[in-house]
Amino acid sequence: MTDRIWTAALLVIGDEILSGRTQDRNIAQLATWLNVQGIRLAEVRVVADSEDAIVEAVNILRARNDYLFTTGGIGPTHDDITVDSIAAALGVPVVVHPRARQILEDYYTTRGGLTDARLRMARVPDGGELIENRMSGAPGIHIGNVFIMAGVPHIAAAMLDSLTGTLEGGLPVVSGTIGCWVGESEVAGLLRDVERAHDGVAIGSYPFFREGRTGANFVVRATDPALVDACLADLTAQLHATGREVVADGI
Amino acid sequence: MTDRIWTAALLVIGDEILSGRTQDRNIAQLATWLNVQGIRLAEVRVVADSEDAIVEAVNILRARNDYLFTTGGIGPTHDDITVDSIAAALGVPVVVHPRARQILEDYYTTRGGLTDARLRMARVPDGGELIENRMSGAPGIHIGNVFIMAGVPHIAAAMLDSLTGTLEGGLPVVSGTIGCWVGESEVAGLLRDVERAHDGVAIGSYPFFREGRTGANFVVRATDPALVDACLADLTAQLHATGREVVADGI
Repeated sequence: MTDRIWTAALLVIGDEILSGRTQDRNIAQLATWLNVQGIRLAEVRVVADSEDAIVEAVNILRARNDYLFTTGGIGPTHDDITVDSIAAALGVPVVVHPRARQILEDYYTTRGGLTDARLRMARVPDGGELIENRMSGAPGIHIGNVFIMAGVPHIAAAMLDSLTGTLEGGLPVVSGTIGCWVGESEVAGLLRDVERAHDGVAIGSYPFFREGRTGANFVVRATDPALVDACLADLTAQLHATGREVVADGI
Repeated sequence: MTDRIWTAALLVIGDEILSGRTQDRNIAQLATWLNVQGIRLAEVRVVADSEDAIVEAVNILRARNDYLFTTGGIGPTHDDITVDSIAAALGVPVVVHPRARQILEDYYTTRGGLTDARLRMARVPDGGELIENRMSGAPGIHIGNVFIMAGVPHIAAAMLDSLTGTLEGGLPVVSGTIGCWVGESEVAGLLRDVERAHDGVAIGSYPFFREGRTGANFVVRATDPALVDACLADLTAQLHATGREVVADGI
């Protein structure tokens, strides 16, 4: 555990996200998981099923982050081009991974056998290791600092579960939330001043309109739980001082 | 109307997405809207509330797409840095837009007045024009091929509604609006049935709470103006049949 900030990027691969057909769930899922590992999700890109787009994004994102995760495009059909594209980005050939082949053979023994299409899911960029998952036969792939995962959220979740505790990170970010029935513009100066008074803390302001009333939740984030508590207490006191009710844990 | 493919990019700005606190809704929302405009969502990036990250992404994405949309970071608080960052990307100063100031003055007349914090929401990159919205006082901004929108999905939706049919794409889209003092949930079935009865038409429902009353505007969209007119007439008649007043061109 160190003081330096560890960062990750996520590359979401898939026409179904860009067409609006599928609502992405992996950004929030990965972000939440990374927080616990002490790794900050620094940037996300969503690209189409296009090798050029994937290669460009992979090479930029893996170079400037400690880790790069990808989701999507590792299934058995013709539009699943993630493995080939990442191999191209890394300048290595694609090979069939013996252990992946064995996993798929076992998995499909009672499911109609290992067809050519299914065997596509045993292909990895040369040098890749497997990220096993308990949800489906097809494994994810780990090569260098790149982690190649499924697009289906519950399968991606199972792959993250396999990786839990295995990645080096820093201090996890902790957060606390309070809510207030106030328009954020009425307390903008107060928020800024409280944030400035607490070094190492970031305050996010998230307004909403609910049941005919304007309100906002204020989220305080830091790596030190004591800093979060002190800042929350100060913010609560200052909102109280303006005569407003504050709701612990947010509205 | 042309055969060429028109593309757009989306830049989602906000720590709340990267921290996992907020599930993004704007990617799917924009993608779906763009489909109707005949424009393809080609790529998405999510960046933190960081000027450097915003500038880099804006300049790459606006150069290689017909349109760039951004969501997030245009509110009144200290973490809202989108306008300043985009102005920096474009190499122009930030100015107060007179019409935006007027809109905010009008909006806050009965809401405590236009404070310095609220006036921040009238600032635009020099040369920017406004994207008005029915949901809140603060407008979005249009400058060059960049469209700067709110992060709150229903406000972003209202801004997209203002832009509907105004962008050149592969197929023109027309729309019409009616308003009704009704909770949209009371007429959800009616809206669905009317939409189903008019093939090729999409009906958007945009609820609001104003002057102590609940209402909604219903926006009918299609590529054929005759279809829009027929659907609007049907929708108006069916709302009348439930005893409700309907306001032509919306509330």
